[in-house]
Amino acid sequence: MATPLQGREIRLKSRPHGEPTPDNFEFATVTVPEPAEGQVLVRNHFMSVDPYMRGRMNDAKSYVPPFKLGEVMDGGSVGQVIRSRSPDFKEGDFVVAGTGGWREYAVAPAKHYQKADPSVGPLSAYLGVLGMPGMTAYVGLLDIGKPKAGDTVFVSAAAGAVGGVVGQIARIKGCRVVGSVGSDAKVKHLRDDLKFDAAINYKSAPIAESLAKACPDGIDVYFDNVGGDHLEAAIGLMKNHGRIVLCGAISVYNATAPTPGPRNLGLAVGKRLTLQGYIVMDHADRRADFLRDVGQWLREGKVQDVSTIVDGLDKAPDAFIGLLRGDNTGKMLVRLAKDA
Amino acid sequence: MATPLQGREIRLKSRPHGEPTPDNFEFATVTVPEPAEGQVLVRNHFMSVDPYMRGRMNDAKSYVPPFKLGEVMDGGSVGQVIRSRSPDFKEGDFVVAGTGGWREYAVAPAKHYQKADPSVGPLSAYLGVLGMPGMTAYVGLLDIGKPKAGDTVFVSAAAGAVGGVVGQIARIKGCRVVGSVGSDAKVKHLRDDLKFDAAINYKSAPIAESLAKACPDGIDVYFDNVGGDHLEAAIGLMKNHGRIVLCGAISVYNATAPTPGPRNLGLAVGKRLTLQGYIVMDHADRRADFLRDVGQWLREGKVQDVSTIVDGLDKAPDAFIGLLRGDNTGKMLVRLAKDA
Repeated sequence: MATPLQGREIRLKSRPHGEPTPDNFEFATVTVPEPAEGQVLVRNHFMSVDPYMRGRMNDAKSYVPPFKLGEVMDGGSVGQVIRSRSPDFKEGDFVVAGTGGWREYAVAPAKHYQKADPSVGPLSAYLGVLGMPGMTAYVGLLDIGKPKAGDTVFVSAAAGAVGGVVGQIARIKGCRVVGSVGSDAKVKHLRDDLKFDAAINYKSAPIAESLAKACPDGIDVYFDNVGGDHLEAAIGLMKNHGRIVLCGAISVYNATAPTPGPRNLGLAVGKRLTLQGYIVMDHADRRADFLRDVGQWLREGKVQDVSTIVDGLDKAPDAFIGLLRGDNTGKMLVRLAKDA
Repeated sequence: MATPLQGREIRLKSRPHGEPTPDNFEFATVTVPEPAEGQVLVRNHFMSVDPYMRGRMNDAKSYVPPFKLGEVMDGGSVGQVIRSRSPDFKEGDFVVAGTGGWREYAVAPAKHYQKADPSVGPLSAYLGVLGMPGMTAYVGLLDIGKPKAGDTVFVSAAAGAVGGVVGQIARIKGCRVVGSVGSDAKVKHLRDDLKFDAAINYKSAPIAESLAKACPDGIDVYFDNVGGDHLEAAIGLMKNHGRIVLCGAISVYNATAPTPGPRNLGLAVGKRLTLQGYIVMDHADRRADFLRDVGQWLREGKVQDVSTIVDGLDKAPDAFIGLLRGDNTGKMLVRLAKDA
C-alpha cells in the first residue's frame, strides 16, 4: 500500500480587525483522503486570492458564508485530476473550481469542477480572464452597465483582475475607456498594455478633480470596484440616464467603522441614474457566452491575460494582504505546483 | 373697451440660503395680456407648491431650469379657460398644466394645458392624486419599484402627495405597506384613512430601529422621498434583489452643505440591490394608463384624494415653506379662486 498523500493547507486562525495580518492564518499538513464515489482528487496548480474573501473572514451573514475558525479556507483553484471516481473526469484532466483553494490537494465532488481547456489560454487564466474575475467583468459591464459604442466608461481598480477586463471589453465595444489606479506604473500599464484612452493615479490628486479632467463630457457607465470617494466623484460626473455597476468596494473592506457614503447620491434623481449591485454567481446562464466571447478575444489578442504570480502556499497570506493594498497588476495568483 | 384685467403674481426676489423665508418672494400686480393666436387665458382655481420647486430656487443646473430673479415663479395649476384663441379649448373648459402657477391668471400656449374632467374627481385632485404627484407615485412604484403581491413596500414621507398615493397603490397591488411620517397625527392618518399596514413616526425613535420593528422580514421595495438616514436604514433592511426608487430627498433640499450619504451602500453588492432615480416627465407615455387606473380607483374609493388647502395667493410662500417642514397632509394646495 502506497504511503498516504500528505498535503499542506491554510486555516483561518483568527478573524482580522481591519487589515488582515499573517497571524490570522495558520498552516497545517493533513493526510489527503481518498476520493469517495462521485469525487475527484485534484492537485492544485494555482489558487486564487480575491477581494471578496476579506468579507468571508468576518463573522457576518453575506452572499457566501463566512470562513470558520480553525477550518481550511476556501477559494478558486485550477489543477489536474490525479484520481477520479466520477465518470465526468479522468486522471490528467485540467479542471477549475470556485472552491478547493488555500491547499495543495483538494478532494471534492466532481460537480464542483469544470474542465479547463489549455488550448484556449494558460491554465492560470481560468482563475483570471477566463474565470470568475473575467466573467464578473463580462456580465457586469455588458448586462448591467449596458454600454453603447461611443459611451464613456469609467472603471476603478482598473489594473485589477476585474477592472482590467472591464476596460478591455469596453474598448472592444467601441467605448472611450477611463481607468483609475494607485500608481504611475499602473497608469502606464493601462495606457500601454491595455490601451485605455485615459488613466488616472488617484493618489496623485483628488479623484474628483482628475476624473473631471479625464471625462470632460461626463460618464455614461461607471464600473465601481472601490466605493468611497471614487463613487462620489463618479456620481458628480454621470450623464443623464447613466448606469453605475456596483461590483465591489475594496476601499472599505478593511474598514473598522462605517465609512461615509456618497454625499451627492441625491443627484441620482435628476440625472435618472441607476445603481445596481450584482453577484457573478447569479449569472451562470451567461457562462457559455462568456467563454465563447472572451476566449475568442484572448486568442485574437484583443484581450490580454494579466497576472501577478507568487510562488508557494507559504506566500498565500502575504499575497492576499497585498491584494487588498493593491500590490497586484492583473489577477493575483499563488502557484502551488512548481512544474505548473 | 373693457377695463384691462389685473392679476397678482409672485416673483422670486432672492435665492434662499437654507430654508426659504418670506423675503425670498415678492408680490406684483400686472395687467393680464390678451391671449395671442394659439394661446388661452386661464383663471387659476388652485396652484401647487411642490418640493421640487426648492431646487429651482437655486441657481443650479438641473432637470428643470432655475427660477429667474425678478420673474414670476412657476408651477402646476388648475383653472378655467376664460378666453381661448385655440381650437383645442373653449371658454369654460377646466384645464390643468404643469405651468401657470404662482399667479391668479395665466396666459399660455394651449398646448401647455390638458383638459380636466370634473366627473373623475374634484378639480384640485388634478394637482394631486390625478396629477403630477399621483403619476409620480404610479410610474415610480409600478415601473421602477415593480412590486409583487406579498412584497413589503416601505415609503417615506408617506403622508405627502406622492407617498400617500404610493402606499395606496401598493396596497391595491397586494403588498404589505409601511410608511414613515413626522407626527403621531400622520401615523393615525396612514393607519385609519390610507389603510397602511404599519406606520412610523420617525421623530419618536431612530428610524433604523423603528423600521426594523415594522419590517421584521425585510423590505422588497423602498420608495425614497427623503434620503438621509431613511435611505441608510432601508438599505440595511432590504432583501436580496430589492429595488429602491429614488424619487426625492426632501430631508436635504434646504441643506447648505453636503449631507452624509448612506454609509452602508456597499451592501447593495451582496444584496443585489437596484437604486434608480427617475423624473416623472420622462414617462408621459404612461399618462393614459395612469388616468385610467387611478381614475377608476378614485371612483371606486380604493384611493383617497387627500389635500391640505390654504386660501389666497398671499399664503403661497408660507404654504411652500411649510411644505418643506412637513406641515401638509396629502397634497399642499393654494386656492386662488374664492368660488372654486
